[in-house]
Amino acid sequence: MIITRKDMTVELVRSDALDEHVIFAAKVSTLGEQTQLLETKNDISDEKFINFLMKNRHGSPFEHNSMTFFIQAPIFVFREFHRHRVGWSYNEESGRYTQLSPVFYLPSEGRNLVQIGKAGSYDFIPGSYDQYQDTQALLLDSYDKSYHTYLTLLEKGIAREIARACLPVAIYSSMYATCNARSLMNFLSLRTKHANSSFPSYPQREIEMVAEKMEEAWAQLMPITHRKFTENGRIAP
Amino acid sequence: MIITRKDMTVELVRSDALDEHVIFAAKVSTLGEQTQLLETKNDISDEKFINFLMKNRHGSPFEHNSMTFFIQAPIFVFREFHRHRVGWSYNEESGRYTQLSPVFYLPSEGRNLVQIGKAGSYDFIPGSYDQYQDTQALLLDSYDKSYHTYLTLLEKGIAREIARACLPVAIYSSMYATCNARSLMNFLSLRTKHANSSFPSYPQREIEMVAEKMEEAWAQLMPITHRKFTENGRIAP
Amino acid sequence: MIITRKDMTVELVRSDALDEHVIFAAKVSTLGEQTQLLETKNDISDEKFINFLMKNRHGSPFEHNSMTFFIQAPIFVFREFHRHRVGWSYNEESGRYTQLSPVFYLPSEGRNLVQIGKAGSYDFIPGSYDQYQDTQALLLDSYDKSYHTYLTLLEKGIAREIARACLPVAIYSSMYATCNARSLMNFLSLRTKHANSSFPSYPQREIEMVAEKMEEAWAQLMPITHRKFTENGRIAP
Amino acid sequence: MIITRKDMTVELVRSDALDEHVIFAAKVSTLGEQTQLLETKNDISDEKFINFLMKNRHGSPFEHNSMTFFIQAPIFVFREFHRHRVGWSYNEESGRYTQLSPVFYLPSEGRNLVQIGKAGSYDFIPGSYDQYQDTQALLLDSYDKSYHTYLTLLEKGIAREIARACLPVAIYSSMYATCNARSLMNFLSLRTKHANSSFPSYPQREIEMVAEKMEEAWAQLMPITHRKFTENGRIAP
Repeated sequence: MIITRKDMTVELVRSDALDEHVIFAAKVSTLGEQTQLLETKNDISDEKFINFLMKNRHGSPFEHNSMTFFIQAPIFVFREFHRHRVGWSYNEESGRYTQLSPVFYLPSEGRNLVQIGKAGSYDFIPGSYDQYQDTQALLLDSYDKSYHTYLTLLEKGIAREIARACLPVAIYSSMYATCNARSLMNFLSLRTKHANSSFPSYPQREIEMVAEKMEEAWAQLMPITHRKFTENGRIAP
Repeated sequence: MIITRKDMTVELVRSDALDEHVIFAAKVSTLGEQTQLLETKNDISDEKFINFLMKNRHGSPFEHNSMTFFIQAPIFVFREFHRHRVGWSYNEESGRYTQLSPVFYLPSEGRNLVQIGKAGSYDFIPGSYDQYQDTQALLLDSYDKSYHTYLTLLEKGIAREIARACLPVAIYSSMYATCNARSLMNFLSLRTKHANSSFPSYPQREIEMVAEKMEEAWAQLMPITHRKFTENGRIAP
Repeated sequence: MIITRKDMTVELVRSDALDEHVIFAAKVSTLGEQTQLLETKNDISDEKFINFLMKNRHGSPFEHNSMTFFIQAPIFVFREFHRHRVGWSYNEESGRYTQLSPVFYLPSEGRNLVQIGKAGSYDFIPGSYDQYQDTQALLLDSYDKSYHTYLTLLEKGIAREIARACLPVAIYSSMYATCNARSLMNFLSLRTKHANSSFPSYPQREIEMVAEKMEEAWAQLMPITHRKFTENGRIAP
Repeated sequence: MIITRKDMTVELVRSDALDEHVIFAAKVSTLGEQTQLLETKNDISDEKFINFLMKNRHGSPFEHNSMTFFIQAPIFVFREFHRHRVGWSYNEESGRYTQLSPVFYLPSEGRNLVQIGKAGSYDFIPGSYDQYQDTQALLLDSYDKSYHTYLTLLEKGIAREIARACLPVAIYSSMYATCNARSLMNFLSLRTKHANSSFPSYPQREIEMVAEKMEEAWAQLMPITHRKFTENGRIAP
């Protein structure tokens, strides 16, 4: 009855986001109406200009663009995601209005299972084969029982919003999330771990898996902005 | 092992929020620096003035105040809560950094269990005694099993952030939430069901329980603002 | 030397904003991943669905879209504009980095010049021909003198950011402004005066001129959303 | 008739902002409801803890506090100020509802008048005595003429909102501004120039004068947070 997944769905549904949108918006401060006449080519000077904006933390020019993603991930990932308030719009599947599907997250073999170090700067190591096996078996069994309870309650006529109380935070949900390059950079700076980061972050691996896919899609849309973000310490300007 | 609760904790930790703060902020638009000299008494004219602001949707004067609440509620309530982005600040207990306590939500006898009507304007009715008993028993048993799995995984050395995957959305969490009168009114207009509302809302009962307690605390701090909010259709200005 | 204008520039530079974006985002709450399979046609049911969202104040589905405008208007208009904080991004011409052009606002003959009524619900009437003539002549002369002082200071080597101190709030500036349908509706509800409004607004005519042009462009992109906004009292959901 | 000023008014009207508020909010993530029992003393460990939050860019704990300022400054300063959207609330004197007072900004002798260097990293030097004298005389004369035009238009029965069109951006206005430590730090990092800044900013001196007074008031309320902000490069966490 139970379906398990070890990955996340991230689809770029729509976008209106190019490097040149950053340049046009920024140049209005010095060119006024003449920005309308700019012919922008992605040449070296665009690269330098975006680098200047990123390095000096001129953030607002990075807001005049838009990306809408369709994301499927466990509820515990969405819980972290929704803490990003500024420059983000969300619409999510509702356990009040629909019967949730029995799709749950199980960590893959590659997921480090054991946490070492101390609060604030944890690190993670693989764990033994037994630990991996136990995790798979115990979680699967627990998901199965919880979902069975959910169905039983629904069959007894209990409202979905109450029956769902027993469902685990590993159940998958779906949402549309819309952001701009600035709010996305803020998200990425906190939700990915990267050698270039001036300020190291320690995201939970599962939200990082979502973030990595979003970053990949964004890097194709705005390659210069993405490159300059990473070269300048991965801090949102 | 399991503790169940049927209520929510809402404590007003700190506040700097009075009706006269609204008046001072609003009067700067007509009095400029002379607002500094205003002697404000909560007399009839204050009442009229706040009514004017509320009725005509002058919202910004209601923002110059602050309330910090300590809240304990199930995760499914916090999930809805955190969708309020503007004028809200949150810090919540983390399942990554702490072992979550075995406290879970069970609906009280008074909680309507059966949903009727159609999407968008559901209504709820009590349900039979059997339905109540089944809900209690099934949820309790499910919580117990899930929490047992959680503990077993922790004992096997699995990281908290993975072990928690099996915990249900009915588990209680704690948070500090800070807002102002305007963002609180927005929250209340959507998360309470009230005869005076111009735009009827259909909140889940559990978040409404939190909202009601917050409203009660706020009404004592800013009685005129609260009264005018309700008299004017409970729409955030 | 002085150029005067009596109108505002509003150009829709880019957009990714259709009625169906609202529908897709909203339906994820009931359909989850199946929204991806929706075939949306602008038929009667879309109309009903958007009406339902608008009427019941489900606001978030209206955020998953984006419009970028290029706007030229006097500084006193931008001053009001920039008070809209949520869901708006701005980049404006800078008087620190450029020499501002001598373009100033003069009210047209059609602009009501005389204010009657009392604070909070002013009304405006045309004024006499003499009043119109005096306004034109006095403002023009004042603009001319102020701009002359500005140029003199620049010639004397004074920094632009200081020299501009004497420039009047009627001087035109340029900006890019990016918003979504929800933040635009909020702007329109406060910055236009309309017979259908549940809550009457009293915007200054000049920002209303900008708002009207923005509304016109938006109505072409999202005709159903626009119609339902007006039919439901022109309150942002 | 004209009054000139060379300084800014910044008064801390109210506050609910202490270092320990940061600590309580942050500790809920690890202590849950036990934060309620914390006895916080401003000892060395508080210092270390706030340093940890600042250094690792844990920003949200710095939001659960509130400061309301009364500010008087020229319009060109408020124009820059209002571009700060997140975590800021504003109510300002309105030129539509009141007759503006003839108070204008004139740079003091200490204000550097001449700009050198290139866009993006300008520097300023004093200028000659003649330049100072000319600036004073020319600006004063221009203000005087503009304000005279304003009064003449008002006498002729023209509405305030039109008559003000000729008033210069150097005229003083009054506002209430409410923020929290996080939004204030963001403001300070961009609107002050400081040797400790990781990312140098080039604010206009006049908004920096406002920022410095706000910083001074804030530093007394939250001395540890302020110190750690500066020690960690003056970037808002």
